Amino acid sequence: METKPTRSALPFTDDQIVAARRYAPVTPPIDLDPRIEVLVKELIGRLADRWTMLVLEVLVERGTMRFGRLREAVGTVSQKMLTQTLRAMERDGLVKRTVHPVVPPHVDYELTELGFTLSAAFCGVWIWASENHRSVEEARETFDARA
Amino acid sequence: METKPTRSALPFTDDQIVAARRYAPVTPPIDLDPRIEVLVKELIGRLADRWTMLVLEVLVERGTMRFGRLREAVGTVSQKMLTQTLRAMERDGLVKRTVHPVVPPHVDYELTELGFTLSAAFCGVWIWASENHRSVEEARETFDARA
Repeated sequence: METKPTRSALPFTDDQIVAARRYAPVTPPIDLDPRIEVLVKELIGRLADRWTMLVLEVLVERGTMRFGRLREAVGTVSQKMLTQTLRAMERDGLVKRTVHPVVPPHVDYELTELGFTLSAAFCGVWIWASENHRSVEEARETFDARA
Repeated sequence: METKPTRSALPFTDDQIVAARRYAPVTPPIDLDPRIEVLVKELIGRLADRWTMLVLEVLVERGTMRFGRLREAVGTVSQKMLTQTLRAMERDGLVKRTVHPVVPPHVDYELTELGFTLSAAFCGVWIWASENHRSVEEARETFDARA
């Protein structure tokens, strides 16, 4: 049996590329300086995290929130993991944390402008997931039946 | 000291919203059925993973690849983690795995059409990261100097 030749070009038709573009933003992709690409990969590694994405989504929908309400809205996240996620997001400049010195004290979290633009960037992924979750479920069923 | 009133509306100006939209796709966000939202959140939790994003990026740029080349291109990933990531992506219908029964045997990975559309959906996040990594670095320096 012959091996299939390795294709270096994109293995997709023009129609498929047009369909995929629906999920891409208006701006065309950028050719990056290799040094910047390293930084971007590191940053993507930090941001591509389920809790970061879910916190962005909750804060963009609900505005300013206290820790407890945020935890309820995010769902199954542990207190420790949410604390870590929020701290990393604050450090990255995505979230602003405000301590109100009232009795009892409370702490609010809200998106910064930078966090808001990142949530817009993730918007295509949410749309993709809502439109394609059935295809993913079917693929999983096929895979599991074969395994 | 008074507490700042909690804002339930978006705490951003129209100009900021326009700027953020640059990263969002053409299609407006979808109002989801709450049952579907649970599925979508689960799916986002799976996909929002640094290795999944990096594998998508490498395969969309380079086309079909063998495991070893893919591992080199992804970077610091361990063999075990890359194997797990590719298996999950195959199960989700994002990646096609082809075993060529040659001597010595080899295994190719390539994106499916579904994987290709997901990589387009993540495109906005790459653009965001390449445009905003400096702001994130500055935020980190400020945070670390304060801590």
